[in-house]
Amino acid sequence: MDAELLEQLKEIVGEGGWREQSEVDPKYYEDWMGARAEVPALLLRPADTEQVSQILAACHRVGQPIAPQGGMTGLVSAAAPHKDEVAMCFDRMKQIQDVDIYTATMTVEAGAELQTIQERAQEAGMFFPLDVGARGSCTAGGNLSTNAGGNRVVRFGMMRDLVLGVEAVLADGQVINGLNKLRKNNTGYDLKQLFIGSEGTLGVITRAVLKLSPTPTSQNVAFCAVENFDEVASLQVYAQASLGSNLSAFEVLWHNTYQLIDEKVPHVKVPLPTNFPFYVLMESMGSSKEKDTELFLEVLEGAAEKGIIADTVVADSDAKVQSLWMVRDAAAEVMGVGYMHTFDVSLKVQDMGYFGEEVEKRLRQQWPQAVIGLFGHIADGNVHIIVNVGPQTRSLHREIDEVVYRLIQELNGSVSAEHGIGIMKKEYLSYCRSEEEITLMKTLKYAMDPKNILSPGRIFL
Amino acid sequence: MDAELLEQLKEIVGEGGWREQSEVDPKYYEDWMGARAEVPALLLRPADTEQVSQILAACHRVGQPIAPQGGMTGLVSAAAPHKDEVAMCFDRMKQIQDVDIYTATMTVEAGAELQTIQERAQEAGMFFPLDVGARGSCTAGGNLSTNAGGNRVVRFGMMRDLVLGVEAVLADGQVINGLNKLRKNNTGYDLKQLFIGSEGTLGVITRAVLKLSPTPTSQNVAFCAVENFDEVASLQVYAQASLGSNLSAFEVLWHNTYQLIDEKVPHVKVPLPTNFPFYVLMESMGSSKEKDTELFLEVLEGAAEKGIIADTVVADSDAKVQSLWMVRDAAAEVMGVGYMHTFDVSLKVQDMGYFGEEVEKRLRQQWPQAVIGLFGHIADGNVHIIVNVGPQTRSLHREIDEVVYRLIQELNGSVSAEHGIGIMKKEYLSYCRSEEEITLMKTLKYAMDPKNILSPGRIFL
Repeated sequence: MDAELLEQLKEIVGEGGWREQSEVDPKYYEDWMGARAEVPALLLRPADTEQVSQILAACHRVGQPIAPQGGMTGLVSAAAPHKDEVAMCFDRMKQIQDVDIYTATMTVEAGAELQTIQERAQEAGMFFPLDVGARGSCTAGGNLSTNAGGNRVVRFGMMRDLVLGVEAVLADGQVINGLNKLRKNNTGYDLKQLFIGSEGTLGVITRAVLKLSPTPTSQNVAFCAVENFDEVASLQVYAQASLGSNLSAFEVLWHNTYQLIDEKVPHVKVPLPTNFPFYVLMESMGSSKEKDTELFLEVLEGAAEKGIIADTVVADSDAKVQSLWMVRDAAAEVMGVGYMHTFDVSLKVQDMGYFGEEVEKRLRQQWPQAVIGLFGHIADGNVHIIVNVGPQTRSLHREIDEVVYRLIQELNGSVSAEHGIGIMKKEYLSYCRSEEEITLMKTLKYAMDPKNILSPGRIFL
Repeated sequence: MDAELLEQLKEIVGEGGWREQSEVDPKYYEDWMGARAEVPALLLRPADTEQVSQILAACHRVGQPIAPQGGMTGLVSAAAPHKDEVAMCFDRMKQIQDVDIYTATMTVEAGAELQTIQERAQEAGMFFPLDVGARGSCTAGGNLSTNAGGNRVVRFGMMRDLVLGVEAVLADGQVINGLNKLRKNNTGYDLKQLFIGSEGTLGVITRAVLKLSPTPTSQNVAFCAVENFDEVASLQVYAQASLGSNLSAFEVLWHNTYQLIDEKVPHVKVPLPTNFPFYVLMESMGSSKEKDTELFLEVLEGAAEKGIIADTVVADSDAKVQSLWMVRDAAAEVMGVGYMHTFDVSLKVQDMGYFGEEVEKRLRQQWPQAVIGLFGHIADGNVHIIVNVGPQTRSLHREIDEVVYRLIQELNGSVSAEHGIGIMKKEYLSYCRSEEEITLMKTLKYAMDPKNILSPGRIFL
């Protein structure tokens, strides 16, 4: 990279604000997907928004590409720096700047970790609902840039729904200070939406105002067996109608996944016999312990009477709640089969029964010995698939992708429910977004970043 | 306007699809703000998205400005056509195309009226939560273009939160088919956000996929008297924590408004003595009638014990529920004082007590006899103000605006909580959005509508 720019950037951030190529710790260039790691020429660690602004202005002048990063826990390799990119991390911008119980908001810097945010909300008697497995490492900036989802979306929405204001720096260094705390603000375009979910390609998020919720005081969990997918769909409609906004999770394991957990995850004991086609973890959260539990039990009874559940276990203690959730979470821990290629797709709930059968059929046509598991956040339309087609799974991933994403395209589904596109799903963006949509996205990208310096090569081919 | 274009446009929509200047009914050019009516050279009534696309392509070629409209019930004059603009209405595009209980969605054309949408949801056993006074006239397209709000925002959000997909036509006629039914879809930029709340300036919305909710089965309402604004704020925090997501309205009337209703709205009988500084209408909606009522009463009891409410009336029948809501709604019916200039602002709840006192003080400095009333959706940070400064109120509106919006600027509030900017608040956009924000808005406008044909002159000076 340009030697003059290098010196300029170092001066902007000052001592301790940068690392040269030879000193960069792998955690700043290796993401969870690993393979594509490139050591960046320079890692910048700005201390505030003003430094981010100066960095971008300097890079913009000479067309230097730059890759902002969060906790590097993304699953589509959007944040890992490419060759010749400068990397920028936020480990010196982790402050929780304000917790406000009246507006029910928290103002944070981009580098604040999700777990810290959750804890600080709790200390103030409030609740920040976003939760994902990477909570200890992932950051507010990363959660926003990827529009993170997770287990509680059915009740609380995705990251986009959990933020009121975003401060971001544009490609040329202009600061858009949108630290709005107001729930209602119809004054021109809602600019924050541009920065949420755009994976760092339209601006660099530096601070945000997050929405807090009242802390739920009740949690009820049941694990149910269901005879076919139509009844899973009926159970979902019934649960939403009867639990109302208390329904906080509706997670489904297909038989294949349940069986894999039973066989391959020794530390998890499955709570029901393994001969049912589907298993549902249902959770309610509310603000009145006794009444919520009563209602939850009534709803389960109603479902049993209607014949839409075949068997049920209800958690009668916090330990049991944890152990039922462990069964659901064990889907990510299937061991001994070999590398599992994973998918994060979404589709209409009424297409899911067919999808489950058809994807298995098509994969087996090519790989008869394939090990396949399906599970997901069904009330959000989100299905995860894990696939092993044998020792060649990793090198065959494009062929496997093609089978799964082609079926998703046929069903008007989405190739990415919550992980984003990054560089790993670029080839498949056109399977679920039209040419006109992609052209408009590129129009926006070009208008806001004409020199293409912000995370270039992500999202688009 | 260009005679050749006129013929071309008539041909696109065919017989019955247009009205010439002399035949245009006033309802297609007079909005609720009245004064600015201009009869358009041509009113177009497209029958489908394809016609909208052809209309815009034709207008784009020659730079003909065009004003799309909904039910003409907006309060900032964004939709009323300007001189030399072609008007476009959606009264031939009112279909409800699909109601889907599994994805909990409804697909509608832009011209479908809100009340029809509410009713069709109800017929399917579901609920569409948006509700505003204009429900019988306003349309899905208008609700989306203005990001409509209303009484239930605290529980269900604004229109932006109630939509999954938007189909829109760009200035050059390109159709962006974003009729997404998926709750989770992280595949590139969330383009629908551009069209929501941008008041017709970035594209013309033709269809949308709306989110439905389960129907609440309980409704509990109480009317409380409170001694000062700090306690109003405490009551709000307490109600949100203890009622959780059941809290569906938290409406506040300042003493001045309550007194005006008592004196000037003869058909409304106020439920509590008129000597309290603040009155709160609190509502809960849930999915379990008996349990929800029990909880609601417990919460009111708790508030009384804490001493944060001074007096309370609880509705014990549906008729009483209606009559308490009538008191709140009567704020819009104050009669006999003369023309009331009205405001729709938002600010942080902890600033509202001061705001109420200060705005009254500043208005009285200039107009000692001013009649002033404050009320609003406090849990959303939204305050409405009605002001009469004497017989000259209408002609003094710029001077009154200046007093109110200057104070809003000092408190980092917003000059428009839910009504938008249109042409009536353009001068004040810069009171709550920075120069950088407005520049970025204009960058987007120019990138998407380079010839400035879509609702030109709205939002920006």
